Amino acid sequence: MDKLHQMLEGYRRGRVSKRDLLAYLKDLPFERLGRVTFDAHRALRTGMKEVLYAPGKSREQLARLVRGSLKAHGSALVTRVDPETGRFLARRFRKGRYRRGGRIFSCGGAAVGRKRTKDVAVITAGAADESVAEEAALTLEHQGWGVERIYDVGVAGIHRLLGHVHAFESSSVIIVVAGMEGALASVVAGLTSRPVLAVPTSAGYGASFGGIAPLLSMLNACAGGVGVVNIDSGFGAACVAHRICSLMSGGRDG
Amino acid sequence: MDKLHQMLEGYRRGRVSKRDLLAYLKDLPFERLGRVTFDAHRALRTGMKEVLYAPGKSREQLARLVRGSLKAHGSALVTRVDPETGRFLARRFRKGRYRRGGRIFSCGGAAVGRKRTKDVAVITAGAADESVAEEAALTLEHQGWGVERIYDVGVAGIHRLLGHVHAFESSSVIIVVAGMEGALASVVAGLTSRPVLAVPTSAGYGASFGGIAPLLSMLNACAGGVGVVNIDSGFGAACVAHRICSLMSGGRDG
Amino acid sequence: MDKLHQMLEGYRRGRVSKRDLLAYLKDLPFERLGRVTFDAHRALRTGMKEVLYAPGKSREQLARLVRGSLKAHGSALVTRVDPETGRFLARRFRKGRYRRGGRIFSCGGAAVGRKRTKDVAVITAGAADESVAEEAALTLEHQGWGVERIYDVGVAGIHRLLGHVHAFESSSVIIVVAGMEGALASVVAGLTSRPVLAVPTSAGYGASFGGIAPLLSMLNACAGGVGVVNIDSGFGAACVAHRICSLMSGGRDG
Amino acid sequence: MDKLHQMLEGYRRGRVSKRDLLAYLKDLPFERLGRVTFDAHRALRTGMKEVLYAPGKSREQLARLVRGSLKAHGSALVTRVDPETGRFLARRFRKGRYRRGGRIFSCGGAAVGRKRTKDVAVITAGAADESVAEEAALTLEHQGWGVERIYDVGVAGIHRLLGHVHAFESSSVIIVVAGMEGALASVVAGLTSRPVLAVPTSAGYGASFGGIAPLLSMLNACAGGVGVVNIDSGFGAACVAHRICSLMSGGRDG
Amino acid sequence: MDKLHQMLEGYRRGRVSKRDLLAYLKDLPFERLGRVTFDAHRALRTGMKEVLYAPGKSREQLARLVRGSLKAHGSALVTRVDPETGRFLARRFRKGRYRRGGRIFSCGGAAVGRKRTKDVAVITAGAADESVAEEAALTLEHQGWGVERIYDVGVAGIHRLLGHVHAFESSSVIIVVAGMEGALASVVAGLTSRPVLAVPTSAGYGASFGGIAPLLSMLNACAGGVGVVNIDSGFGAACVAHRICSLMSGGRDG
Amino acid sequence: MDKLHQMLEGYRRGRVSKRDLLAYLKDLPFERLGRVTFDAHRALRTGMKEVLYAPGKSREQLARLVRGSLKAHGSALVTRVDPETGRFLARRFRKGRYRRGGRIFSCGGAAVGRKRTKDVAVITAGAADESVAEEAALTLEHQGWGVERIYDVGVAGIHRLLGHVHAFESSSVIIVVAGMEGALASVVAGLTSRPVLAVPTSAGYGASFGGIAPLLSMLNACAGGVGVVNIDSGFGAACVAHRICSLMSGGRDG
Amino acid sequence: MDKLHQMLEGYRRGRVSKRDLLAYLKDLPFERLGRVTFDAHRALRTGMKEVLYAPGKSREQLARLVRGSLKAHGSALVTRVDPETGRFLARRFRKGRYRRGGRIFSCGGAAVGRKRTKDVAVITAGAADESVAEEAALTLEHQGWGVERIYDVGVAGIHRLLGHVHAFESSSVIIVVAGMEGALASVVAGLTSRPVLAVPTSAGYGASFGGIAPLLSMLNACAGGVGVVNIDSGFGAACVAHRICSLMSGGRDG
Amino acid sequence: MDKLHQMLEGYRRGRVSKRDLLAYLKDLPFERLGRVTFDAHRALRTGMKEVLYAPGKSREQLARLVRGSLKAHGSALVTRVDPETGRFLARRFRKGRYRRGGRIFSCGGAAVGRKRTKDVAVITAGAADESVAEEAALTLEHQGWGVERIYDVGVAGIHRLLGHVHAFESSSVIIVVAGMEGALASVVAGLTSRPVLAVPTSAGYGASFGGIAPLLSMLNACAGGVGVVNIDSGFGAACVAHRICSLMSGGRDG
Repeated sequence: MDKLHQMLEGYRRGRVSKRDLLAYLKDLPFERLGRVTFDAHRALRTGMKEVLYAPGKSREQLARLVRGSLKAHGSALVTRVDPETGRFLARRFRKGRYRRGGRIFSCGGAAVGRKRTKDVAVITAGAADESVAEEAALTLEHQGWGVERIYDVGVAGIHRLLGHVHAFESSSVIIVVAGMEGALASVVAGLTSRPVLAVPTSAGYGASFGGIAPLLSMLNACAGGVGVVNIDSGFGAACVAHRICSLMSGGRDG
Repeated sequence: MDKLHQMLEGYRRGRVSKRDLLAYLKDLPFERLGRVTFDAHRALRTGMKEVLYAPGKSREQLARLVRGSLKAHGSALVTRVDPETGRFLARRFRKGRYRRGGRIFSCGGAAVGRKRTKDVAVITAGAADESVAEEAALTLEHQGWGVERIYDVGVAGIHRLLGHVHAFESSSVIIVVAGMEGALASVVAGLTSRPVLAVPTSAGYGASFGGIAPLLSMLNACAGGVGVVNIDSGFGAACVAHRICSLMSGGRDG
Repeated sequence: MDKLHQMLEGYRRGRVSKRDLLAYLKDLPFERLGRVTFDAHRALRTGMKEVLYAPGKSREQLARLVRGSLKAHGSALVTRVDPETGRFLARRFRKGRYRRGGRIFSCGGAAVGRKRTKDVAVITAGAADESVAEEAALTLEHQGWGVERIYDVGVAGIHRLLGHVHAFESSSVIIVVAGMEGALASVVAGLTSRPVLAVPTSAGYGASFGGIAPLLSMLNACAGGVGVVNIDSGFGAACVAHRICSLMSGGRDG
Repeated sequence: MDKLHQMLEGYRRGRVSKRDLLAYLKDLPFERLGRVTFDAHRALRTGMKEVLYAPGKSREQLARLVRGSLKAHGSALVTRVDPETGRFLARRFRKGRYRRGGRIFSCGGAAVGRKRTKDVAVITAGAADESVAEEAALTLEHQGWGVERIYDVGVAGIHRLLGHVHAFESSSVIIVVAGMEGALASVVAGLTSRPVLAVPTSAGYGASFGGIAPLLSMLNACAGGVGVVNIDSGFGAACVAHRICSLMSGGRDG
Repeated sequence: MDKLHQMLEGYRRGRVSKRDLLAYLKDLPFERLGRVTFDAHRALRTGMKEVLYAPGKSREQLARLVRGSLKAHGSALVTRVDPETGRFLARRFRKGRYRRGGRIFSCGGAAVGRKRTKDVAVITAGAADESVAEEAALTLEHQGWGVERIYDVGVAGIHRLLGHVHAFESSSVIIVVAGMEGALASVVAGLTSRPVLAVPTSAGYGASFGGIAPLLSMLNACAGGVGVVNIDSGFGAACVAHRICSLMSGGRDG
Repeated sequence: MDKLHQMLEGYRRGRVSKRDLLAYLKDLPFERLGRVTFDAHRALRTGMKEVLYAPGKSREQLARLVRGSLKAHGSALVTRVDPETGRFLARRFRKGRYRRGGRIFSCGGAAVGRKRTKDVAVITAGAADESVAEEAALTLEHQGWGVERIYDVGVAGIHRLLGHVHAFESSSVIIVVAGMEGALASVVAGLTSRPVLAVPTSAGYGASFGGIAPLLSMLNACAGGVGVVNIDSGFGAACVAHRICSLMSGGRDG
Repeated sequence: MDKLHQMLEGYRRGRVSKRDLLAYLKDLPFERLGRVTFDAHRALRTGMKEVLYAPGKSREQLARLVRGSLKAHGSALVTRVDPETGRFLARRFRKGRYRRGGRIFSCGGAAVGRKRTKDVAVITAGAADESVAEEAALTLEHQGWGVERIYDVGVAGIHRLLGHVHAFESSSVIIVVAGMEGALASVVAGLTSRPVLAVPTSAGYGASFGGIAPLLSMLNACAGGVGVVNIDSGFGAACVAHRICSLMSGGRDG
Repeated sequence: MDKLHQMLEGYRRGRVSKRDLLAYLKDLPFERLGRVTFDAHRALRTGMKEVLYAPGKSREQLARLVRGSLKAHGSALVTRVDPETGRFLARRFRKGRYRRGGRIFSCGGAAVGRKRTKDVAVITAGAADESVAEEAALTLEHQGWGVERIYDVGVAGIHRLLGHVHAFESSSVIIVVAGMEGALASVVAGLTSRPVLAVPTSAGYGASFGGIAPLLSMLNACAGGVGVVNIDSGFGAACVAHRICSLMSGGRDG
């Protein structure tokens, strides 16, 4: 920013012509000013604490990134952590905790999971969808939101699901995690007025084609009000949910 | 068959050697005997009256086939008949009737639709699935089975569906016709003990991909007990249902 | 409900045993009570006025449905209306208006489009995406929300888009409509903290594969916070946006 | 159910008004009554003993589930069990037996395989399809049905198949298990009047695409009367077959 | 070729050095010599009379090409001719004949169809495959080969097919044309020792996906000895069959 | 820009603090400055005259856009123009010319096609690829580049192609347009050192799948040096070629 | 066959009525006679020695099958043998030989590879295609045919291929093995009059999609006369080639 | 070439007739002359040093090939080298260096990476795309070109990218490497006038489908001027870039 200050100073003192200043400013935004100010804006606006994605990173790289995140935000969250790496991080960071279910390592930050108000309901169809659901739930709790877990209520036994209808309405957003035929998203969206975020999972075999079956199901959900994210992307659903919840708490000025 | 009789006769009378008779018999099955006896067996066993498929046939060809079927069975059923051809056939055959809904022309035969016992329940998710459902229903009625129509009970409003649960159990087979995400098959299969035959339809747009979405959904139905047929194939589902119903009425000796 | 009243009355008067009453109640929910109460609940909760889908319906059917909607809600909205049908409806309903751009016919109801607060920003990449965008915008305005249209700001000229960044933040939800490579969703999501709903369109040719290219792009959006709906489904995005906006105005008790 | 009893009691005694009782009943079904009564209905109707699915469960979890199933039903069946886990379960449960062919562990229950009447014929095209076929056969035997195994009779040598035609008719249902081009389903359906359930397998390579080739073949079977289940899903076919067989033995009142 | 002659002449006379001649020859093959000699070779070797492909050509263009072919070969064959164009060509060329079945126009040449020896057997599964089969049959007859047509012998009634087994062996090559599930190729290949050329057709609907189902079936044919050509390409199969038949008549020196 | 001038002026005169000026500048780039300066940069850099895309635009819209382009650049080019619209434009603009082959309307500008140096060689495999090739060729000529057309030299007769090898090297870029199996791209790239741009076309049928076959072929070209553009996108290839040619004429400072 | 003899004997002696004999014969073909005579026919006709497919079989199973084949035919061939199993078989059968290149184990039989006449030319595009090519070559040599190997002559350097043109014509059949873009099949078919059998391989990466790219290329080969087999199926191509070569050596009576 | 010399000599001396010489020359090009001269031409023209592809080759084979390349060109480059093989090669060739990032082993040759002019800019969207980018960069440096690396500037934070706009224009070619939604290619192409080569990567999961998502994105790039290469093919992009750079330095005569 020194150059900018110099230019402005020079301009005010008459050492830099208006034409030169304008020429300088024309390219400025994309080089220095833009880079700096924008980052600030962004952090301010999204207000979503950084979440680390483990695959492809070495243990030492992850440890370094966790330490950086702790310094910057007082907390850290790492997704898609395999058990061995999870144990490594838990040994390295005493306050940290690895949750095998969600393949997530978290450390420090606001007391995760303690919030009483339930901002988001996370629903799964079957046991195999749980790790993806936990990725969504823990990411949201890391950002400070309350999560209501309603697991294993697939449409094969529709009555199990019906018992939770009232819980749907007391959340702001509903995340539906389902593999196989992914019918749960349609059914839930028909039972609630809340926005529904659907996460297809790769649970299943054969003609599930690694999650294509529930993905297409959810995109074609006959009940309106369903937004879909990538296969197995609990994190992706959490991001959208976070934005809606932020909107709720901050209002239009947020 | 004359040749066979001659050979046997010649053999008995010593005019044909055993070796020649055996040589003759060796190829026989695939040429004459096989063809004849088998056809008889087949007609006897499947007991399904022929159904005519209209596409690719000229009006005159269809009229001739209908006349042939009337002569042979006393009734005729033509599927996938466009309105114009339907009107043509209805003019030509006074007792015939064209049903635009199911794109079906039927003529003569047992009083279709009058049967009081409901052998098969045909369920649709939305209005767009009705013509496929009617193809199944009318084909079954043509074979003499009673059909219970439960239309427009998609999972977006699950309560509409729940009101029909008892009707499911009073049928022998349930045919579920659904486009879009095809979730209805899973939900119905979870509510009944009857075999469920699922027909994905090409109703829908975009990521429905002409019926691939509900097809995959149904193949991955989380509730067991669902057999799937080709996209839009109301006739295909009727065929399987007919076989199950025949089994029911005839027992194991059928 | 008569039967229910009778049973309760009989029970109170001792003519119906508790056991019989319980047996009756056990199946009740899915037959009568369930159907009625649930519908009421649903209407109350979703609060989304019915929107009619034109394809597959005759003009007279549509006219009848429009009349029904006008009687019930004081307004009507029909989507995917071809120009000829649109002109027909406009002649039949004097107060109605057909908008060729969005292939939408609307009639009566709150003064659509007059709202000054902008609840939803609808953004398109190119001119070919406009009719899908209008389907979203007009559906939202029909529900009473204010819509900011930002059209033709695709990423090929990123600067056009950057000029609208502040407009993003002043809406609650952002709908991005894009065909071809669908990159706009990622870029917009990286520029705002609002939830982004992405609609892939079938605009394009060749390897666009009728919208598969932007659909996959949007599902893989590298910037978090993007929920995707079906190809060309402006209506689908409007449904999710409506639920979020309702949440905003009604709070958690909505 | 206490609350329900209290409400009914209070109503009869005049302590609870009819209006309050109705308000209570309105939400009841989806919360308590529904959940309880429905489960009972379901067990009653489907009559299919629970089958455990091994993938994704730890050995100890499986052992616990087997023990639970033994306590509840007197028998247990686990599918998709890898050899090592199979040996573990066989050591833990002395009466249990692991069958490598079908990747199935079974324990206790009715003497599996002893039934003389053959309710279901299970046919395979080649040796590679056998483990899927065994999954179907053992599941059916676990439910108490008699199974006729007709293996390795693919259409490359059609004569092998023709020798079994009479065996087809003496079963109620026929399950065809085939990979590669899956032609067997069409051929068998043309030779019998029984309902045919087709299981495509992932046996094969190259353009078999993990079972897509036989799946499409079976969905397009030119002979009517074929219902298709998911790739490799011997269990899925067994479920449909079980429902048909139950129908046979119990009649319409089942 | 003048330049070449000049160079050789000059070289012999000492006016062109060996080095210059070699430099000239180096590039020669790809420019003049190659072009000319190769064409001659090619015509000599393949010995397949040119066949015209109608789509995308105007009627006048086709008439001109037919006239050219008549002048060069004394005969002409045009494939994929729509009825209207066919009538046009038949009017223009008095000796010509349009066959609607195979969408083929032929004119002059050896008396097509009169040959008594049957070199190729063309087999179809259903009536819908006939036009593709005729494209193969008429193309082969145009090249002078005898064709045995065995139509409508699909595997749904395997006995119809078995009656033709001996006819298979009396041909040199067998072309199997089938849509839907394409099982016929496997079955036929298992019944004969002749090379089988399989043509998948786009006949069928739904999960036939325009011929993908039979294409995959045929590529995965469990019986060895099946070569597959493009969907609906009767012409493609005729080309391979022509090459095999030429081999037969000409021996290895052909 | 007035505001900017005011701010600078105010700052120099001390009426605007440095902090306020910086705050103003921070958002500036994305609103006014960015928009303006960037456009200028862009036009300067790409130097590619606008090309109009006809589909989805009315005739009057096109006429208006052509008139605008003529005013701005002195020339106009419209792609994907159907014959009827082409005739309309040719009547409206006397100097314009519609070329049916390339479905292109051009008007005014530099004498297209007269350039003697051949900057780009456009090669097609078959007659069906010609309209796509012309789209590329005419677009390039519109930008002022010389084009060498080498049509109908597919690999089925490799010798035809080999005669053109020297022509390849005398161009800067080679565009290969091919449908069916698209092998031409690989073969050409192996014969030249020039960058090869490959355009798969939807010419073909059956397993060509609308251009997927040549698209995959070209992406897998065994000879390095092939860049692929969208199916049927002659325009897309022309854009890349234009950039390479511009680079050639302008050098690195371009 | 005893029963048949008894029946015939009894009939001649008057102990069996003609009606009973006919009833017996009616079912006979599909049970005993058919099975036996047919097998004989088949062995006689195809004359292809059995080839064993290793995947999915244990080492001991393979050893047993090899021993059986040696006893029956005096030779054995096993395809898709991994190195470890190959070494095992080579130790067990002293005369056997494992060829790592083709993943084939062969033992005994006619002196493989010694034949001087070259019946089949096997051509590969690149080094990665060699193991598939060897599967074809060794299978053919096992059946007694002479094989000319022309490896690594892909179209990236078309000149390498052109040097082998004359070798093409001196074989009866040409097998082209190619991965990546599979262009070799088209080019070879354009250079020869022999039937070309194309084997797409899964060599390559990315958009090769495990062999789909060359598969589609080959099905769309612009040069006629190409029959395609399954991806990586050297054995499949050998089967078709064997049938053509048998035809050649045996003539039409073969 | 001896035969050619003999023939020419003989012709000049009158021992060989002109007709015999011509007959000899006719076939010559495709056998000896063609092979030799062409190779020379090719090496001369492409001027691209050979690059070795490691997969499928043993360590010893690679070592031999590296030694050969060193002898011929004084340098060697091996791509797709796994770490273990990399270490092996680095031990064997002391001057060699294995770069884990790009999975590349290089040895000797021009001082790679030292060139100051930046001919090609290689841009990546995320950290996961880096190894593919390095494959492109190191291959280009091996050919002697200068490479500007601009990594991790994906569109989620568009401002990071904008800071590099000027760097784009100072290169001749831009290679964009991106996985997930691949939007970066469109955005970059809109910001520069340089030809853009896009490499989709398989980085990502779920609906990225191993790189199909970015591949389709890039083919549909709304900004013109993008040529696409195979998924993960950094080498492929380097080949095209090399050809463009060669063109730049050598001009049209190159």
